[in-house]
Amino acid sequence: MSGERPRPGAIKTVTSAANPVVKEIRALTMRKHRTERGLFLAEGLKLVADALEAGWPIRTVVLSEDLESQTRAAQTAATARARGALVVMASEEVMARLTRRDNPQTMVGVFHQRLVGLDAVEAKPAPVWVALEDVRDPGNLGTILRTVDAVAGAGVILIGDTTDPFGLEAVRASMGSIFHVPIVRVSREAFMAWRSRFPGVVIGTHLAGAVDYRTVMTDKPVLLLMGTEQRGLSEEIVAACDRLVKIPMAGKADSLNLAVSTGVMLYELGRNRLSL
Amino acid sequence: MSGERPRPGAIKTVTSAANPVVKEIRALTMRKHRTERGLFLAEGLKLVADALEAGWPIRTVVLSEDLESQTRAAQTAATARARGALVVMASEEVMARLTRRDNPQTMVGVFHQRLVGLDAVEAKPAPVWVALEDVRDPGNLGTILRTVDAVAGAGVILIGDTTDPFGLEAVRASMGSIFHVPIVRVSREAFMAWRSRFPGVVIGTHLAGAVDYRTVMTDKPVLLLMGTEQRGLSEEIVAACDRLVKIPMAGKADSLNLAVSTGVMLYELGRNRLSL
Repeated sequence: MSGERPRPGAIKTVTSAANPVVKEIRALTMRKHRTERGLFLAEGLKLVADALEAGWPIRTVVLSEDLESQTRAAQTAATARARGALVVMASEEVMARLTRRDNPQTMVGVFHQRLVGLDAVEAKPAPVWVALEDVRDPGNLGTILRTVDAVAGAGVILIGDTTDPFGLEAVRASMGSIFHVPIVRVSREAFMAWRSRFPGVVIGTHLAGAVDYRTVMTDKPVLLLMGTEQRGLSEEIVAACDRLVKIPMAGKADSLNLAVSTGVMLYELGRNRLSL
Repeated sequence: MSGERPRPGAIKTVTSAANPVVKEIRALTMRKHRTERGLFLAEGLKLVADALEAGWPIRTVVLSEDLESQTRAAQTAATARARGALVVMASEEVMARLTRRDNPQTMVGVFHQRLVGLDAVEAKPAPVWVALEDVRDPGNLGTILRTVDAVAGAGVILIGDTTDPFGLEAVRASMGSIFHVPIVRVSREAFMAWRSRFPGVVIGTHLAGAVDYRTVMTDKPVLLLMGTEQRGLSEEIVAACDRLVKIPMAGKADSLNLAVSTGVMLYELGRNRLSL
């Protein structure tokens, strides 16, 4: 599928679901294919434009026929083409198949995945990195990327068995922040072997934390560790924390949503740093 | 469908998707039918047990065949029956249809909806009510119910054109908190006509807010107003606020997720009240 790709002068219109571009995009809704090809999808004009603006390498743009006349869509398609992307139009029916929606998105972009290594954490440890252990919910992951962006956090480390940050739901929930927030992906073992090289405070949020989260502020770089809603952080990771803190709860809820607790922690950590 | 309902001594097993119980449950996945019948679904043993424990009126319980031998499931089914519910078993195939999953939930309960009126807000205005204008995302609404529960908030007011709190996704995201947090539902007009009767401070969160959210703490009862991620609060509602506050953002994100910003605000409001 990556062999000859036509680059016509005029934009070609795809009307068949059997078209290789359509087949590739549909394949990329599956994690297996995303990982094998190192590609992922961004749906909607805003996301595609955000990704291009942030300099993400693009492979393909598909836009709906009715969109070609619209200025911003045409500009985005032109930018993508100038960066070497294949640009095609698709009929409404094909677009609906691509985005699995009755009211299909009007633009889909195929981008190359980008991850960074743990050396990026050492290179820019401040003000805060968020590390998520075994995070499973793509909506939570995307929302956390969005919050890390909003507090100008340095990036996110995914530890262990986590959901794919390049899955559609995570990308969507990030509202474009996935294009601005560096992501590291490591095994628990690799993280543990590296951990002592973090030049700051490693803070874990844990129901067994004895220290109130309101005591968490520090001027040092922070690595904030968050576990799953169900089991929290693993014992191994807990042992690697300098401090364990807890967010108090007063009602009948067993736990907070992971994106909410991460948001509360990040705003607490930014308390003396963020300003209007 | 609400006419004669068998109440056998032994639990009947449903194997046909044409069974009236199955048809009713499938209809309740649609908002129209939920509203017409004043019923809603709770999926999973934990949610059904939570709802029963919180005293919610129950109409039907469906449990999977393999579950009858398990103690907690049998107890939950017995409690439901003692409260007048119809209890039936379902084959795995029927269960999969009911819950639209390959790994179906093992129990589904049909409950009667319960809302409270604005008089409930006046009766117990403290410490905090959250009012959401035009909230559309059911996951966000459910997550907000969960956070309100966690900070022992008094309840949630839904203003205007909002998603259904009794929809499957909202109930699921609430993780059972929907059974603990009173919900009021009002039109914008009814809210505006009532607003002066709130015996405390009405605080709106707004991108145009001139005041930092860290100045928000107060000993008075608070009504916290949150708008949509896209447009914020309407002008009408903004005009009804005593104070407008803003959560600072430092990165490239345009906005925070609504459940995250509500969580940050609620923990800020609870700063002097919540303890480990």
